[in-house]
Amino acid sequence: MNVAYVNPFISATIHMFKTMLNTELKPGTPMLKKEPLPSYDISGVIGLSGEAQGSIALSFPKAVSLKIVSSLLGAEIKIVGPELTDGIGELANIIAGNAKQFLSEFNLSISLPNVIIGKNHVIASPSGAPTIIVPFSCSFGEFAMEVSLKTK
Amino acid sequence: MNVAYVNPFISATIHMFKTMLNTELKPGTPMLKKEPLPSYDISGVIGLSGEAQGSIALSFPKAVSLKIVSSLLGAEIKIVGPELTDGIGELANIIAGNAKQFLSEFNLSISLPNVIIGKNHVIASPSGAPTIIVPFSCSFGEFAMEVSLKTK
Repeated sequence: MNVAYVNPFISATIHMFKTMLNTELKPGTPMLKKEPLPSYDISGVIGLSGEAQGSIALSFPKAVSLKIVSSLLGAEIKIVGPELTDGIGELANIIAGNAKQFLSEFNLSISLPNVIIGKNHVIASPSGAPTIIVPFSCSFGEFAMEVSLKTK
Repeated sequence: MNVAYVNPFISATIHMFKTMLNTELKPGTPMLKKEPLPSYDISGVIGLSGEAQGSIALSFPKAVSLKIVSSLLGAEIKIVGPELTDGIGELANIIAGNAKQFLSEFNLSISLPNVIIGKNHVIASPSGAPTIIVPFSCSFGEFAMEVSLKTK
């Protein structure tokens, strides 16, 4: 995986947080996920397919996800329920949709989001498809993005 | 979601277990997933996109997943590691790839598999996209398939 392919996902995430949540994101250093590491408590995962195949996941601690979706909806969400999972799924959907425009050579299409809930769940990708993790921090707290894209 | 769209996934799963694992599967009654229910310990998830969008997940108790992948590889796997996650991902990949041929009207393409590991993890789909659960039983034990497909 060419790490340059991660840049559109980083840019899309920063743009989304700036325009929809009025929040500056600080991306950390992207790193290769060497083994299945636990993600945070709740992850929005979107499959990518077309001339390349992969997935993008945004993974949040529960408290951070509640703050972000509350801000997105303009109403306080206190529990893990459909508002939260729909909010996290939509966030992943917007970021994947935005990023794919900058990867037009792959003619990517995106799946519906799946939202994974579970303390210390692990998201593994196929061994042959390296995953890049990008940590982010912002006023809501910390979270991480995981991108895997296998070009043919 | 038209429940008829689940049939190709059921057939593909039965066919895969018969040809690659020499095992007869008994499908249970498909049911609508009404709220986010915990899945088993390990799930292979594949995103579907094209003229319809969705995902398919195959979710296994840990012991069942180890038995199935051991049988698939012809070598005993005892721990949750790359062999197991790659095996479960490949299984989901084969089933999704087979099923999509019978849903050619949607020109579906499939993402790389993500494999989710975690006791009682929950896989949620968007509220507007109903998910159908199909329980299966076989000599390896019980597992479940979850299919969500949103037609335009």
